[in-house]
Amino acid sequence: MRLILFCLLLLPGIAGAQLTIDSTAFLIRDIYRQSYTELKAYEWLTTLCKDIGHRLSGSEGAERAVEWSKSTMDTFGLDKVWLQPTLVPHWERGGNAQVIMISPEYGAQTLMALALGNSPGTPKGGVRAEVIEVQTIDELRAMPDEKVKGKIIFFNRAMDMGQLNTFAAYGNAADQRYSGPHVAGYKGAVGVAIRSLSSRQDDYPHTGSTFVSDTSRNIPSVALSTNDAVRLSKAIKAGPTELFIETHGKMLEDKMSYNVIGEIKGTISPDTIILVGGHLDSWDVGDGAQDDGSGCVHSMEVLYRLKKINYKPRYTIRCVLFMNEENGLRGGLTYADSAISKNEFHMVAIESDGGAGMPTGFGVSAGEHTKLDEALSHMGTFISLLEPYGIGLFPGGGGADIGPLKPKAGLLIGLRPQSARYFDYHHADNDVLETVHPRELAAGSAALTTFIILLDQYGIYK
Amino acid sequence: MRLILFCLLLLPGIAGAQLTIDSTAFLIRDIYRQSYTELKAYEWLTTLCKDIGHRLSGSEGAERAVEWSKSTMDTFGLDKVWLQPTLVPHWERGGNAQVIMISPEYGAQTLMALALGNSPGTPKGGVRAEVIEVQTIDELRAMPDEKVKGKIIFFNRAMDMGQLNTFAAYGNAADQRYSGPHVAGYKGAVGVAIRSLSSRQDDYPHTGSTFVSDTSRNIPSVALSTNDAVRLSKAIKAGPTELFIETHGKMLEDKMSYNVIGEIKGTISPDTIILVGGHLDSWDVGDGAQDDGSGCVHSMEVLYRLKKINYKPRYTIRCVLFMNEENGLRGGLTYADSAISKNEFHMVAIESDGGAGMPTGFGVSAGEHTKLDEALSHMGTFISLLEPYGIGLFPGGGGADIGPLKPKAGLLIGLRPQSARYFDYHHADNDVLETVHPRELAAGSAALTTFIILLDQYGIYK
Repeated sequence: MRLILFCLLLLPGIAGAQLTIDSTAFLIRDIYRQSYTELKAYEWLTTLCKDIGHRLSGSEGAERAVEWSKSTMDTFGLDKVWLQPTLVPHWERGGNAQVIMISPEYGAQTLMALALGNSPGTPKGGVRAEVIEVQTIDELRAMPDEKVKGKIIFFNRAMDMGQLNTFAAYGNAADQRYSGPHVAGYKGAVGVAIRSLSSRQDDYPHTGSTFVSDTSRNIPSVALSTNDAVRLSKAIKAGPTELFIETHGKMLEDKMSYNVIGEIKGTISPDTIILVGGHLDSWDVGDGAQDDGSGCVHSMEVLYRLKKINYKPRYTIRCVLFMNEENGLRGGLTYADSAISKNEFHMVAIESDGGAGMPTGFGVSAGEHTKLDEALSHMGTFISLLEPYGIGLFPGGGGADIGPLKPKAGLLIGLRPQSARYFDYHHADNDVLETVHPRELAAGSAALTTFIILLDQYGIYK
Repeated sequence: MRLILFCLLLLPGIAGAQLTIDSTAFLIRDIYRQSYTELKAYEWLTTLCKDIGHRLSGSEGAERAVEWSKSTMDTFGLDKVWLQPTLVPHWERGGNAQVIMISPEYGAQTLMALALGNSPGTPKGGVRAEVIEVQTIDELRAMPDEKVKGKIIFFNRAMDMGQLNTFAAYGNAADQRYSGPHVAGYKGAVGVAIRSLSSRQDDYPHTGSTFVSDTSRNIPSVALSTNDAVRLSKAIKAGPTELFIETHGKMLEDKMSYNVIGEIKGTISPDTIILVGGHLDSWDVGDGAQDDGSGCVHSMEVLYRLKKINYKPRYTIRCVLFMNEENGLRGGLTYADSAISKNEFHMVAIESDGGAGMPTGFGVSAGEHTKLDEALSHMGTFISLLEPYGIGLFPGGGGADIGPLKPKAGLLIGLRPQSARYFDYHHADNDVLETVHPRELAAGSAALTTFIILLDQYGIYK
């Protein structure tokens, strides 16, 4: 019954014809209904998390995720599914970090820790040194080098949980992890520990990328659980405290990997592209369920759902599962290089890389030649169709993988899920399928699918 | 520092003075920040769930919850905290239900079941009879009585998960539980099993209130887990199937219990009341964390937070923790009787009884003498201050406990949390503290506190 109705709306003969507002509203309602009842994204995420598991670039998991997502998209009946080769860094953790705090006041205690991604291992036997606590990189920069030399630096600034949006709180604390070890190494430190970028006070350490360079000294660095960061800080306040750190990280040779891409060709302007994507790689802990398995299955469901309702887009709708967002962004860079060299025009590129929470809307940024105000004002005329679903537009957004498209894209947009829970799990062992609610995940797929139909119907300008 | 600023805004000397829009926006931001960093509601909910536990009316848990919430509110420095006596029904489950399916095709299988609240126990030794599946009460009504006589009726209509809002899906399926056993008993059935009103396909049975009467025959009735409802339906399709049911429910003598009430007196119109509340009782399974521990600690935090910022309301702000929402509504009825007999005017009564999810806004209904359109239009002028927090107004809402105030209230309003997860846990053993996110719970407290400040400042009419 449903399909017959759609055929009336979307006859092959009137492919690409503009839908009326009424029929669009009906279509939106039906896509939500289908997503909520079929729960396809959750089915795929279960496979990705539990049969494949985590999938750091260069790992066997990443390889299997490429194969699985390609073969799954092959079943949708798309116009084209392909792999785009990209060389990726290949870092291996090489075993668990061992971190021991030695405090005259509290004795020797093992701390929960994960080596930061890309960081080098310690010499065999580890490093042991006095630990100095700082809150900011600027505070460290202001210290005389001789005070830092031979020491372990402990960055202990917590995420500011008074922020409304945990992504803002993360953004304001993440410099410690990304640049802290680099600056500390430059000043002669022998190791770094950071308080995990976590929104919970618990025992999970949260890893993530740290900057390594060819020209300066890279030093071993670890993230401590928030509970152990509190413990360590207390010990330091009580008197001179040492840390013993042993890690085993190793950067190996670059490895060949792939972006996985599928598309439905546009019936009117096939050279204009609406992209939706997430990243297929994850950290080498947990399931990578929130970051970013969810974004991948969201994006896959967009194409699956459009095919299922036999939607014939005006523009080409393309799903891209990027490789290597976490520790190199090679997939995003390769994709943009290729798109720009082929002179492809991405009217819109949307990334889902904010987890599986209930979507609240889309954050919008402009490509280099787009007037954001005009686009937002035009989109304001149709986004009201998604208001009953809790979806709004916000200025500012995008995604790491689509960022390199900026010179040649109309708009760069990021899906904005509810952020309360995301940083409880981000880059940690507890980023598992069980944190994802099938219905919230489905709402993300439906928000993306319906928003893309609106963009395809009404464009980004009047 | 923060308190000094508030003192400037809210000097005792200018108690009740109207705040400027700018200072209100600042106040709202600060209340969110305080709620997110202090996480007071979660601290209280932990005590209510883990030290006290579930608290069905008449139980020891309910008694302890009354004592605890009274003594906790006593520490806020309110103008008055008191107990309002109310006689409540005292139903006891009396032990686990045993339900066995006897199928020629699938053999004998034990099914996961909970007796429905208020339902009588079976005779010693249980009942055993052939089971007839129906989807609706109307389908049962249309059956000849002789077909029903001596049988067990199985109501198997699932919640429609294609609905956007799970509360609507629940509302459309709940007649089976509330009225199904009554109708079946009237037609001569000896027992009823219902498919649990659950949004998940799993092994948890969900209990809840069923109608019992003095004049007709009340029969034993149970809820089956959704997985077992599927199993039973499959067996019935394969051939005549029997159920064995043994339950132990018993309605004892009414017991004295209490609504727990605290208030801050209004400085300008103390006889006009803004009420915020939840219900203190829960079912006798799980922790009663979502239903409705969350609503209680939400409401308590409103008064706690207003005192903490030294807010001097124009109107009296009253927190009411109602007793016996689940199986009698006696607390709500007693409260309204008393309020109406004292000629108290509730300008607004707000209930939080939709769980601990991220709030999306407030559902608004009119009291008997209020023009809803005019009130919504006026409130539209200030609710925009809460838009950045994801809070909107919706027509339609309220709460069971505040419903009886309708003849004498201006507006009846229900907090609307995000509903995706609520019916996974509702009235089941898995409604535990661990399903509640401290930050989402805090957002509920902050939404209520700030909305109440706006109502206190700007009223419900121009």
